[in-house]
Amino acid sequence: MDADLEEPAMHVAAMMKTHPRPIGRPEDAFAGCIEACHDCSATCLICADACLSEEMVEELRACIRLDLDCADICRATAAVLSRQAQGTFRELLAACIAACRRCGDECAKHASHHAHCRICAEVCRACAQSCEHALGMPI
Amino acid sequence: MDADLEEPAMHVAAMMKTHPRPIGRPEDAFAGCIEACHDCSATCLICADACLSEEMVEELRACIRLDLDCADICRATAAVLSRQAQGTFRELLAACIAACRRCGDECAKHASHHAHCRICAEVCRACAQSCEHALGMPI
Amino acid sequence: MDADLEEPAMHVAAMMKTHPRPIGRPEDAFAGCIEACHDCSATCLICADACLSEEMVEELRACIRLDLDCADICRATAAVLSRQAQGTFRELLAACIAACRRCGDECAKHASHHAHCRICAEVCRACAQSCEHALGMPI
Amino acid sequence: MDADLEEPAMHVAAMMKTHPRPIGRPEDAFAGCIEACHDCSATCLICADACLSEEMVEELRACIRLDLDCADICRATAAVLSRQAQGTFRELLAACIAACRRCGDECAKHASHHAHCRICAEVCRACAQSCEHALGMPI
Repeated sequence: MDADLEEPAMHVAAMMKTHPRPIGRPEDAFAGCIEACHDCSATCLICADACLSEEMVEELRACIRLDLDCADICRATAAVLSRQAQGTFRELLAACIAACRRCGDECAKHASHHAHCRICAEVCRACAQSCEHALGMPI
Repeated sequence: MDADLEEPAMHVAAMMKTHPRPIGRPEDAFAGCIEACHDCSATCLICADACLSEEMVEELRACIRLDLDCADICRATAAVLSRQAQGTFRELLAACIAACRRCGDECAKHASHHAHCRICAEVCRACAQSCEHALGMPI
Repeated sequence: MDADLEEPAMHVAAMMKTHPRPIGRPEDAFAGCIEACHDCSATCLICADACLSEEMVEELRACIRLDLDCADICRATAAVLSRQAQGTFRELLAACIAACRRCGDECAKHASHHAHCRICAEVCRACAQSCEHALGMPI
Repeated sequence: MDADLEEPAMHVAAMMKTHPRPIGRPEDAFAGCIEACHDCSATCLICADACLSEEMVEELRACIRLDLDCADICRATAAVLSRQAQGTFRELLAACIAACRRCGDECAKHASHHAHCRICAEVCRACAQSCEHALGMPI
């Protein structure tokens, strides 16, 4: 009965299809990238807090910081890609790719000890890939 | 081959399961609520921009504002629920429910004219429900 | 010559004066509250990272979490108060006051050891006061 | 008596001085840049809403979008600069400079008609300058 439990997916793709004036951007690549950015931001927020709960928190300082940086940058990227402003998004996608790569690399170091870092590394790399895909589009 | 295209769902539930020290919160209700908040925030960002593109934008001012308010509050709620800080989340869930209800009601007024408002109204209401569910949990 | 170094204050009050359609809110109380929320959010972000750098980071976990929660909620509150949407802000101000009080109380416990916590406690309490002031206004 | 009314400035510089482990970044340039980013984000949020209130809102669509983009990117930049994570900030500063320049240029077009756009253009340009200053620092 709970709509939220039965339908866990995001509605980004459906929403992007209803947008009245896409400015020529490849709709599907962008929808996928926006979703990946939201997912990565959400994942990094949880990974940062999970790292903070670990006994050896002092060894995870860099991971927590890169998680939080990645969460903020992915969120901003998702928001900017959701808007039809012309031109601002290229530099931001480059920054987002860099943040996802760095966070993914750091999380990968801890993947064998912490399941949250293992998942987070995968999500960060998928997001970086998705941003590269969007950046490679003609517009 | 693109991981981001094949696996569109969020990783919140998987991440919450790996968190080393849940402070007694009902994990599943919270994971569902966090996902609903991210989805609602993402949806409202797109709805605001879609409204801004409509020819009759001057009639959608309230809708744009409530979309943006809802996006900000849902995002903050998702972030706070992702952390194991004790006590801060009840008031915020109440604020989030109020924001989702108001945005959902306003979007519902435009649902017959704008598909983005129709979807957004549904997503807002599902998110309000999900927040109410989380708020009703014992901890 | 650097404009940014010579003029460190925020421009919120000046901006609020130029807004074409204030919806009857007491402009000055809101401008002060918006500035206090931005300041508190900025301060809490730095306090969280400073705590994370401390040798005894494991004793500062609650402080880091409350800092990050407060930063997110203050930011959302500032954004919502900056918009002329009707009605959404009361519940959010209540949540913001609660977050500021909790963060301020936690930081106050560490004030004698960490200067960043001492300053942050003061800023959080000033922000809570400013939000209470705004909440007490007729509209 | 209201602390928030008597002390409107931000506490970023004071906080940065108390941070226990600066990773070699030029403290003052970064503090100035973090403040400029928060100020610009705050200003752009109000400018977007003020534009939305203008009678000729349909002519201000691009301005509203660039304001919101700039607000999101400046906020993320301020958050990332507030943390001592190594390496993520250069690409983001580049994106922030681009966003501030574009928003400043668009707002400047409307400066003679709308005081909020005039102030916002100045704040955006000061923020771009401040980011360039930080980017030019040795570390």
